[in-house]
This record gives sequence, C-alpha cells and structure tokens, in this order.
Amino acid sequence: MVAATATRGSAPDRPEGPDFALSDLAGYAQCDLQGDPQRRIRGVASLASAAPDQVAFLANARLRGLLADCRAGAVVLAAADAPACPVDHLIHPSPHSAFARIAALFERHEPRPAGIHPSAVIAPDARIDASAHIGPQVWIGSRSVIGPGCVIGPGCTIGEDCTIGADCRLVARVSLVARVVLGERVLIHPGAVLGADGFGLARDGERWLKVPQLGGVRIGDDCEIGANTTIDRGALEDTVLEEDVRLDNQVQIGHNVRIGAHSALAGCVGVAGSTRIGRHCLLGGAVGVVGHLDICDRVVINGFSMVSSSITEPGVYGSGIPAQEHRRWRRNLVRLHALDDTTRRLLATTRTKDEPDHD
Amino acid sequence: MVAATATRGSAPDRPEGPDFALSDLAGYAQCDLQGDPQRRIRGVASLASAAPDQVAFLANARLRGLLADCRAGAVVLAAADAPACPVDHLIHPSPHSAFARIAALFERHEPRPAGIHPSAVIAPDARIDASAHIGPQVWIGSRSVIGPGCVIGPGCTIGEDCTIGADCRLVARVSLVARVVLGERVLIHPGAVLGADGFGLARDGERWLKVPQLGGVRIGDDCEIGANTTIDRGALEDTVLEEDVRLDNQVQIGHNVRIGAHSALAGCVGVAGSTRIGRHCLLGGAVGVVGHLDICDRVVINGFSMVSSSITEPGVYGSGIPAQEHRRWRRNLVRLHALDDTTRRLLATTRTKDEPDHD
Amino acid sequence: MVAATATRGSAPDRPEGPDFALSDLAGYAQCDLQGDPQRRIRGVASLASAAPDQVAFLANARLRGLLADCRAGAVVLAAADAPACPVDHLIHPSPHSAFARIAALFERHEPRPAGIHPSAVIAPDARIDASAHIGPQVWIGSRSVIGPGCVIGPGCTIGEDCTIGADCRLVARVSLVARVVLGERVLIHPGAVLGADGFGLARDGERWLKVPQLGGVRIGDDCEIGANTTIDRGALEDTVLEEDVRLDNQVQIGHNVRIGAHSALAGCVGVAGSTRIGRHCLLGGAVGVVGHLDICDRVVINGFSMVSSSITEPGVYGSGIPAQEHRRWRRNLVRLHALDDTTRRLLATTRTKDEPDHD
Repeated sequence: MVAATATRGSAPDRPEGPDFALSDLAGYAQCDLQGDPQRRIRGVASLASAAPDQVAFLANARLRGLLADCRAGAVVLAAADAPACPVDHLIHPSPHSAFARIAALFERHEPRPAGIHPSAVIAPDARIDASAHIGPQVWIGSRSVIGPGCVIGPGCTIGEDCTIGADCRLVARVSLVARVVLGERVLIHPGAVLGADGFGLARDGERWLKVPQLGGVRIGDDCEIGANTTIDRGALEDTVLEEDVRLDNQVQIGHNVRIGAHSALAGCVGVAGSTRIGRHCLLGGAVGVVGHLDICDRVVINGFSMVSSSITEPGVYGSGIPAQEHRRWRRNLVRLHALDDTTRRLLATTRTKDEPDHD
Repeated sequence: MVAATATRGSAPDRPEGPDFALSDLAGYAQCDLQGDPQRRIRGVASLASAAPDQVAFLANARLRGLLADCRAGAVVLAAADAPACPVDHLIHPSPHSAFARIAALFERHEPRPAGIHPSAVIAPDARIDASAHIGPQVWIGSRSVIGPGCVIGPGCTIGEDCTIGADCRLVARVSLVARVVLGERVLIHPGAVLGADGFGLARDGERWLKVPQLGGVRIGDDCEIGANTTIDRGALEDTVLEEDVRLDNQVQIGHNVRIGAHSALAGCVGVAGSTRIGRHCLLGGAVGVVGHLDICDRVVINGFSMVSSSITEPGVYGSGIPAQEHRRWRRNLVRLHALDDTTRRLLATTRTKDEPDHD
Repeated sequence: MVAATATRGSAPDRPEGPDFALSDLAGYAQCDLQGDPQRRIRGVASLASAAPDQVAFLANARLRGLLADCRAGAVVLAAADAPACPVDHLIHPSPHSAFARIAALFERHEPRPAGIHPSAVIAPDARIDASAHIGPQVWIGSRSVIGPGCVIGPGCTIGEDCTIGADCRLVARVSLVARVVLGERVLIHPGAVLGADGFGLARDGERWLKVPQLGGVRIGDDCEIGANTTIDRGALEDTVLEEDVRLDNQVQIGHNVRIGAHSALAGCVGVAGSTRIGRHCLLGGAVGVVGHLDICDRVVINGFSMVSSSITEPGVYGSGIPAQEHRRWRRNLVRLHALDDTTRRLLATTRTKDEPDHD
C-alpha cells in the first residue's frame, strides 16, 4: 500500500517508549491532535481491531465504514475524515506515512550484538568493522569489507570483493556472490542473491558458449531487496540500483540493468538485461520488461503487463487482462486469435468511399 | 495432476514391507482386486515401464493406449478401464489417490534421529522437544518452540518467536524470519521464506518511508509450501494459510493475505497483500491476484490469468492467451492495440435503426 | 544476448596472461587481425568505455554509432563493420562468441583448494573425490558422490543418493534434495533447488492426499542453472535436462519435465509437469508452458507468452501483449472482454450472400 505526503519541516526527536502519551505521538508524527493529549498508547492495530490503548489509521477509502464502530484510542486520518471519527484522532495529510512513523516506535528490534559468531568463517583478508554483527554460519570471502553497524544474519554467504556500507542488514541466508557493493542502510531479506552471473550466452555452432560476467552490482543507500529476489552482476560494467529503490520478493533483475532512485518494483517483476528504468517509477506485480530498453522517470506500469519498447513519456501504462468467466473468455479468445482476419473482412465489407483503408 | 474420489470408510492398517502381497495392497488402498491375491509387489512404476513385480496406475485418459502392452504386476484403474486391462488390476473410483496410498508404502524416508546436531546454534531460551531432529548448521532464535517429531533440516534459520507444531518437516535451507506459527505436519521445501517483511511503503515527499511489519504468519495443519516460495508476515495482523493449503514452488504471498482450507496454488502464482482466497480454490500456474480482493470458495483460476476484482461466484475463470505462430499473433496484436477505435468505426458504419448503440 | 557463429576448426591453445599481445588474442579467438599485432591488451570493456589497452566488441547494430568515438585497443566485429572502425580490430563472423573467448582469458577465478572445510558435515558413507573442494557449512548426505574437480560452495546442502560428475560448480547455498544426478561441468548458481518434491496431489474427498515423488533429477553435461531456479524431481521417473541446457534465474521446472539439449530458458519461465521441450529451443522471459505437452525441436517462444498446446512445427510463437498508455488500453480491454458478442453482431450485420457464416 502506498500513500503520499509532503515532508513537513525537520523531524522531531524520537520519544522513548515502551508506551507514549498521545501528544508525544502527535508531535513526533507531526499530526494535529484532536482529543486527550495525556491518553496512554501502548501499541498500534488495524481500524477494526484496535483497543482504547492503541492507535489505528484510515488511509483507504474502502475502510471508511469501519470508523463508526472503531474503539481505538486514536485514529490517524485525513482532515476530511475527522468529523466522522467517534474517537480521538491525529490529523495528517498522509495518514499512512504518519502512522508508519508511529508504528515504528512500537517495533521491537531483536538485539544483534557486535562481534563475529564463532561458527562464522571469515577470510583472513576480509575487514569486519568492530561494531558489526556477523551471525552464525556466515561465510565471508577474500577482500570483502563489512561496515560499521552492519547485521549479517545467519547463513549469509558473501563472496570475494564485496563492500557493505554502514548499517546494512542482511536478514538471513542472503548471498552476495562477488563484486557487490552496498551503500548505507541497505536491507536485504532472506534468500536474495546479488551478483550471480548474468545470463550471457553466445552461440558457438550448435552449442552455447558462456560469456564471462566481469562486472559487479552496486546498490545505493536505503535500498530494500525482497526475499528470494535476484540481481545479476554485469557482463562488463555494473548492474546498478540508485538510492532508495525498493524491490519486493521474487523480483529478477538482469545484468547491466540500471534502476533510478526512489523507484519501487512489486513482487515477481522481471527486468531483462541492459534495460534502464528511470527515477520514481512504479512497476506492479509480475510486470516483465524486455532487455535494452529505456524507461523514463515517473512511469507507472500496471501489474501483469509486458513492456517491450522504450517509454519516453511519464504516465501510466499497462497490458494486463482481468480474468473473465471461463466460457466467455474462451469465446473471446477464439475471436482474438482470428482478430486480424475478421477485422479485415469487416472493414472490407463496410468500407465506404469517404473512409479509405489506412490500416 | 489432480484426481477426485470420495473417502470410503475408515482407513485400514498400513501393511509392513518391504514387499507386499497384491491382496494387502488392495485392502490398504480399498480397491477391488481382480487377479492373483498372492502376487508379490516390490515397487511402483509408470504404466509404460512397470515390471511384473510393480504396480502402475491409469488415471489420465490420454494414456489408455498404453494399457494393451502393459507388463505391470497390477494396474490401479477405474472400473470402466478394467475390461481392456491385460494384467491383474485394482479397481478404485479414484485410481490416482489409491495409487498414491500404495506408492507411499514404497517411499523410503531417510532416518532423521532425534537430537540436536552439534553444529546447530540454538538460543538458550528456545524450547526444542526431545523427539525433534535439528540438523546441521541450523539456527534457532529466542523464544522459538520446536514441537515433537519435527525435522528441521540442514541450513534452516528460524528467527525469534516462532512456534512449530508436531511432526513438521523443514527439508533444508528454509527461513522462518519472525513470529511464524506452523500447525502440525506442515512440510516446507528448501529455499522457502516465511515471515519476511511485507512490502509496506508510504510516500514521504519524494522518498519512501518503510511501514513496520508488526504481524506474523500462521500456517494451518497439513499445509505444504514449495521450494523458494515466499510468504510475508502481516503489517498489523497475520498472514494466514488455513489447514491443508498446498503451495507449489516460487509462489509469492503478500502480507495479510488469507487462504482458505484445502486450496492449492500452482507454481509461480503471486497473491498481493490483504487479498482473501476462499476454501477449495485452485489457482493455475503463474496466476496473479491483485491486492485487497475477496475470492469466494471453490473458484478455479486457469493458469497465466490476472485477477483484478473480487469473485463472488464459484466457477472457472481465466484470461490467459495461448501462443500463436508469431507473425499471425503480430497481426492480431496490431488489431488488439486499436480495438476500440476499429470497433467504434465498424459499429458506426453498420448501425441500423433496430440496433441502437449501447456500447 | 545471443549471437551465432559456425565453429571454425579445432580450438588453439589458451595463451597465458595476465596480459596478451593482440596477435595472441586473434589467434586464440580465430579472428582476422587488422592492426598492430604487438599491442598489449590488459582487459576487456564496453565499446563506450574501453581504453587503448582493452578489447571491446560490436555485435548489436544499435551500438554501431559508438564506433566513431571508440578508444579501445581493438574491437571484435563483423567484416561489414570493419571499414567504419577507427582503431585496430579483430574480424569474426560472430563477434559476440569471439569476444566471449577473449573475455574468458581475463576472468579471475578465485582459488578453491581441494579438500573439505572443517565446518562441513559429510555422511560417513558419502564419497568425496580428493580433488574436490567442499566449502564451509556444506552438508552432504548418505551415499552421495562428489566427482573430481568439483567446487561445492558455502552453505550448499546435498541430500541422499546424489551423484555429481567431474568439474561441477555449485556456487553457494544450492540444495540438491535427493536422487539428483549431475553430469560434468554443471554450473549452479546460489539458491537453486534441485530435486524437491514435485507438486503431486490427489483428491481424497474434500482433502488433499500427497502423491509420493519417487523419481529423481538428471542434469546433462555443461548445463547451467540460474539463481533461485527450482527443478522438481519426478513422481515415478526422472526430471531430465539433456546436455548444454541453460536456465536463467527463477525458472521453475515441474516434475517429469524433459528439456532437450542446447535449449535455453530465460528468467522466470515456468514449465509444468510432464511436458517435453525439444532440442535447440529458446523460451523468452516469463513464458509459461502448461503440463503434458510436447514442444518439438527448434521452437522459439517469445517472452511473456503462454503455451497451452503441443507444438509440432519449428518456428517462432508468442502471445505477449506490449503495454499501452493506460487509458487507451482500458478502452481496448472493454472491447476485448466483449469481443465475441461484438464480432457476432458485426458479422450478422455485414454478412452477404457471397460470404456465409462459418465462424
């Protein structure tokens, strides 16, 4: 779910929990408080289930009907929804982002103490910052560098010549194969593989000849990489994600792809080799993008669409087909498979002198 | 492959192998035996390759032609196919399920003795039942509980606050990230990731703000989760699979999804966040379901279809397009991309007084 | 990227680096040299960035415009492009494959010494060739055999009854579950899972009954398996990849599939159970193939297409739909969803005596 807001001045200090006065939450999330400033809040919950010591939010118009029976301590909502809210509320132009800030106060981060677990296997010439946590059964190869504050979770494998910036978190079982460079605060979920060989093949008579993949992968600050997502390393130059790119689970990024800052790709998207995607792009679930294309900034591709030519105008694009009742779809499909023939026939039959054939 | 049968009374005792009299197999699988009850059976095989000491089955009408040359010791089949069968046979209304029961007698389960492998790393406050097997290079985090009879295979990582019911099997390299609860007899194949952060983002000006994912994942009894499948944990409440849900490989389940009992999702299906799928649903390969939908019970979605609105009637739905010869498809595609314009033109040309435009 | 060439006689000896005379590279890659045979070459790079001590290549006509400003030491190109090349060049009918040979001379392979890492856990009855490298945190099960020269990277799990031929490389975190047989020189990238249970289910009343998966997986010589790709083992017989099959990342191969030699499947392809794909086939990204089909040799399926019936003629097939501007696509979609009704109406209106309805 995605919501939009404008940034409202500099962020105030993070209050200390475990529970909070409603006024503290309002101040921290820069909301207008309507209600009891002293109310104690001990958690967050959904609109339907929140109790009087919990904060909920309303950002999706389809859930507006739940407001009347809401028992939350307070609801984060837009000004337009305030009159209908029977409980205390926190008004913000982007309720979702304000709620995200509040919810983060209640997130419990398991401690990951600095140091190297004795079961980890580290190359003698790897450099591990003293403040980093290296978990059980991790392997780190030659010449790799782990920055301050990093958490390298259990079962991760980090190959040769990788550099991980400050405060990155590899949750568990992540593989960086070789020549992968992460910026700061990069978050990678389990099973992701960065820096595997790109799919480079040349024909050699009737056989395949493997094309060496000599490039690397560069990931900008604040990127997030989903579970079981794969990002291949480049053939000659690098595969690049600029800062604040967000990839969901099971996304596949081919070699030499470049994705611009602040773009987000939903689950199961595939981007073939050497394509460039601009900044602030949104790709819906299961979108496929052909190789060697250029997609400009601020393009939205709706889910289940294929992009097979470059896009030079910002806007919304798509080619997904919603499912129909099977028998009806089957009949439409028969017509689609004969569409050119039928259209030609119909155009020929109906053509008039005023309307020449220009198909 | 899927076959249907009615349950026929209570299950008889499992006979002891390694080989069996044909009459024992017939009794165990509740088939009518036509042939030599004393015939020794030492394995199972396909209709085309089965030897005289093996059992085969016929459930797919397209394979009926193989019956004439079949050399199996016995064939499990429906009554209608019995007259054409040249060898002994076991008649059952659902040959596939009867064969599944027989084949299971020949499955060799590698022993996984109770106990914790010395290379496993277990948090001091995790609770491991004495009858569970914890394999090599496993990591188990704080407050997690492993039930009796579980097999946690090599390289699995189980984060904090997970609870695994009796007799679950995590084959190898499975990750449960945090707050994942499994029922009993859940089977999870390698590379699956349960409980990773859902893809929750809010816009914060031109940047992304991560929405904390505070919920968990709950998996019912007898579920099966395929290799490299991902199931994210909920944002506020849990992502839920009810009992006996079957997910194939590389399925992606977004946060807060709920899937009803006895539903099955084929390979590469993606279900976006907060969608509810009913009981006894079947989703074909690579189906994509948009977020925040409700799919009722007993819905079948054919493979390669997109579901982008809720479904309230049981039935079969689809939108997949079978491939055509490329040049023909290209011509149809040109017409499809101009379909509205062409249709408008044709309707305008052909419209008669009797048939007003209501498009 | 794929390029074609004919094999040109037997391969000459591999020259010794780290740097090379241009004439040595020309001889090794069987190119015609036009330029300074003594020029020292120290690496490879792209056409746009190559320096005077690097070799670049031109195989994609869209990059021809970069030739004029190229500063490379030499460019591998086709004879037709030679006149426009301002620097030394190496002429070859397949510049991509000739370049691949040259680039391989500059690939640095991290040493993986023979022997078993002390953190690996190996069943007593597994057989490991003395020349194989078994990396950290590897697990190898009973009766499995690792051939000479193999590299089993960190975190791999190899179950019971697997056999790995000479000179295979499992990069990291690969799982072979059980009964997986690899030929020689098979390369498998991280996160791949071979030999997991096929998705075999029979209906047992209102519940699912699991069908035992008793077969294995057989992979031919020189195959390459991408990151997070899954290949299930067969139900009764084996799932088979013949020699020199190339699978990209996140490909899903169902049980009992057979793929012919020299075929290549791009990222995110799914092939359902029991389908046979011929030799020299190419499947584009995200293609889906339904189960129980036969695809003949030398079939090309364009990306994002569904194949739902057998193909008996070599050629190019497809059903992918390129994305359009959203509002235009929405209007076309409304027409597509009513295509049969509209077509019937139009045909009825326009039908003449000379053209009877045969739809």
